Amino acid sequence: MIYNEQGKARVESLTIMTELVLPNDTNVLGNLLGGRLLHWIDIAGALTATRHSDGLVATITMDMVEFKCSVKMGDIVTLTSYVTWTGRTSLETAVEVYSENPMDGTRQRINKVYLVFVCLDRYAKKRPVVPFLPLSDNEIAEFERAKERKKRRLEHTNA
Amino acid sequence: MIYNEQGKARVESLTIMTELVLPNDTNVLGNLLGGRLLHWIDIAGALTATRHSDGLVATITMDMVEFKCSVKMGDIVTLTSYVTWTGRTSLETAVEVYSENPMDGTRQRINKVYLVFVCLDRYAKKRPVVPFLPLSDNEIAEFERAKERKKRRLEHTNA
Amino acid sequence: MIYNEQGKARVESLTIMTELVLPNDTNVLGNLLGGRLLHWIDIAGALTATRHSDGLVATITMDMVEFKCSVKMGDIVTLTSYVTWTGRTSLETAVEVYSENPMDGTRQRINKVYLVFVCLDRYAKKRPVVPFLPLSDNEIAEFERAKERKKRRLEHTNA
Amino acid sequence: MIYNEQGKARVESLTIMTELVLPNDTNVLGNLLGGRLLHWIDIAGALTATRHSDGLVATITMDMVEFKCSVKMGDIVTLTSYVTWTGRTSLETAVEVYSENPMDGTRQRINKVYLVFVCLDRYAKKRPVVPFLPLSDNEIAEFERAKERKKRRLEHTNA
Amino acid sequence: MIYNEQGKARVESLTIMTELVLPNDTNVLGNLLGGRLLHWIDIAGALTATRHSDGLVATITMDMVEFKCSVKMGDIVTLTSYVTWTGRTSLETAVEVYSENPMDGTRQRINKVYLVFVCLDRYAKKRPVVPFLPLSDNEIAEFERAKERKKRRLEHTNA
Amino acid sequence: MIYNEQGKARVESLTIMTELVLPNDTNVLGNLLGGRLLHWIDIAGALTATRHSDGLVATITMDMVEFKCSVKMGDIVTLTSYVTWTGRTSLETAVEVYSENPMDGTRQRINKVYLVFVCLDRYAKKRPVVPFLPLSDNEIAEFERAKERKKRRLEHTNA
Repeated sequence: MIYNEQGKARVESLTIMTELVLPNDTNVLGNLLGGRLLHWIDIAGALTATRHSDGLVATITMDMVEFKCSVKMGDIVTLTSYVTWTGRTSLETAVEVYSENPMDGTRQRINKVYLVFVCLDRYAKKRPVVPFLPLSDNEIAEFERAKERKKRRLEHTNA
Repeated sequence: MIYNEQGKARVESLTIMTELVLPNDTNVLGNLLGGRLLHWIDIAGALTATRHSDGLVATITMDMVEFKCSVKMGDIVTLTSYVTWTGRTSLETAVEVYSENPMDGTRQRINKVYLVFVCLDRYAKKRPVVPFLPLSDNEIAEFERAKERKKRRLEHTNA
Repeated sequence: MIYNEQGKARVESLTIMTELVLPNDTNVLGNLLGGRLLHWIDIAGALTATRHSDGLVATITMDMVEFKCSVKMGDIVTLTSYVTWTGRTSLETAVEVYSENPMDGTRQRINKVYLVFVCLDRYAKKRPVVPFLPLSDNEIAEFERAKERKKRRLEHTNA
Repeated sequence: MIYNEQGKARVESLTIMTELVLPNDTNVLGNLLGGRLLHWIDIAGALTATRHSDGLVATITMDMVEFKCSVKMGDIVTLTSYVTWTGRTSLETAVEVYSENPMDGTRQRINKVYLVFVCLDRYAKKRPVVPFLPLSDNEIAEFERAKERKKRRLEHTNA
Repeated sequence: MIYNEQGKARVESLTIMTELVLPNDTNVLGNLLGGRLLHWIDIAGALTATRHSDGLVATITMDMVEFKCSVKMGDIVTLTSYVTWTGRTSLETAVEVYSENPMDGTRQRINKVYLVFVCLDRYAKKRPVVPFLPLSDNEIAEFERAKERKKRRLEHTNA
Repeated sequence: MIYNEQGKARVESLTIMTELVLPNDTNVLGNLLGGRLLHWIDIAGALTATRHSDGLVATITMDMVEFKCSVKMGDIVTLTSYVTWTGRTSLETAVEVYSENPMDGTRQRINKVYLVFVCLDRYAKKRPVVPFLPLSDNEIAEFERAKERKKRRLEHTNA
């Protein structure tokens, strides 16, 4: 495992979830329920946060989510989740969601969602998190933009 | 039912959901999973949107969600959902979430979330929605602030 | 919270649950499963009993349930639950169930069910319950009729 | 299959269900939720009604249910369901419920519940049901007592 | 309960499970998901192993499973599970699966699966199991053939 | 997408599923239920089979499954699924299962399971499947060994 004094790389906690849309996940039109997708997004983010921080986490915020197109029963949903930023006891993850029509192999992007998690010990007290070490130019840029997202969240809280 | 040429009042689609937090809704610490709460929020909003528009709806956006305090197994979660704004084929609802410790009756506010839904006919085509008629000063003020929320969503989409 | 030496009022533990009938709740005809509705009724009653007694409860009896009309997938089910009687360590709740066709807003009454709960401490021993204070004429009349319901239950047990 | 002009015997639709009480079936005390047991009772009765009538059925009434003792997580619940009476388009089943502690093999009787089902064709219209043919003295006695249960249900409906 | 120094008979832990195939158990074609059936088979075997050994068990192996015909939504699945062999701390069960079309009463055999369980105490340590006492010629023959199945499993493990 | 006249490569249908073990997935000891894992394995294999064949599939066989070590509540389970062989209308997939303790990052191999799926059209009739094109030495070797697995399955069927 790549791990050094400076922190952990993105690849160490990258998580891929694949879900088949079954009847129980759909509404009367046979479309995936928004709430079911939100549940999967939260789990995907939590898995990355757990892996990066080697321990318990709790969701603090989920940024705005857009549902750009409908997902049908029988479709395959893929969620890719990775760390984008770490603070002292909290960390941010991004979750990218795609759906796939298995009949023709076409894929569409559903959304990309940022979540913030706090790291907890087993008494549910905050604990420090190992720093995220952005490596590529993209990772560094996304890390930098985390400040703007943090600012927007504060504005939202105070709105 | 109060219904006139001008539109429908908030009370006509107000929805109250009450949920008991069972083992299946919790994580290893016995706390409510964020994703489960998001699922309930989406259903609460969808029920209001369905009732206001007398038909099928699909979630378009869920604004940022904060999880301000943890909810424990055995707690009671109450979700109150109501219309705050209508457009031509879409409408906005707010969902207020409280949790309640049944042992001592204490209540805490978890969050308030805005969602936008699009109204669909049974062929999944957009259909017009009856206008929301804000009545009290509060309802009128929240209706006015919907423009800012809409603007913020557009900024987010383009960010 | 309205609470005095004489007891607690109905409004203090009144519970409203709203459920959307999803594919997983239905049978082959697309109708709500009776057993799913019974589960919701039990939870609704238990929430009221928990709120009235500020603690753990267990279901002791559910009176006869009639399913007067079918509920379809996509319908909205509303359960309103309230206290009707208290004894020393047990209490009775009524649950009124309505279903609503969101397409045309029509509502039908499904049934009204009485349940009895026993109040437990965390060692699962019986504990005393704060008395219910019926206020309106209706509440007083329903409180009085609880004796007949109790008698009928005993007859049933011995039948 | 034993089947003659006079009707069908009990053994032809007798149903045994065995359920393991898992975490998702329990409350905060680790006891089986009443509503989960009611769901199993309804399914058990419906399976017998379906088998006896060779087709679709819907629950019409569930008689009073008593929960005589608590069932713990890890216990095994056995439900035995059989026909007790048939009318022209409806039939009555009894469901006997036992729980079993697998650690010491002790068994306790939880309750015995009567349900009435109506027989439906695929357009949800009532259809005639093949008569139940009680064979033993016990079966004949229970068949006779069905009239009293029917009377008690009518009293309840009109109460 | 039949129990002597030599061991326990098959009938003492025989388990019958009956399941109704609901929408949530099916795929896009309305057929029972293979994984749902595997879950039921595992539970059926575990119930028998728990009953025979009077305590906790964990699945060690499930032999090859064939899905010989499709099972449709609305069908009734019956699983019959019984002990076939015991070792010092492990035991083997067979699960026979049938499906039934309730519309015409036709039954088809789906498969027969052997599972091996290990017996655990509450610290998850292996514990001895009471011997299985095969009584009929069939039971003795199946007990003997358990050696071949054990051999085949070892070959599989080393393949 | 890499696709040519000769067939499809493994990478085109490789599927990664990640699952968090929640309370509802566990038994009384807090260990993952075998049947839940079997359900995940079946879904993982079906996703690969669906992706490779661009259409509906049904499980035909699941080879012997061993549960080599226990998986605890809170652990993360990863399933990697890929094509190993294709016939005219059926294909074989392998699913490799690992569990991960998020507290210390340790990983253990649970098992590797082969499943065979048949490819169906929307009338549930068999349809031809595009050939799998093994590329590396490993893929070619596993493709060759598929014949032995097929032979073993036939022996099992006739045993």
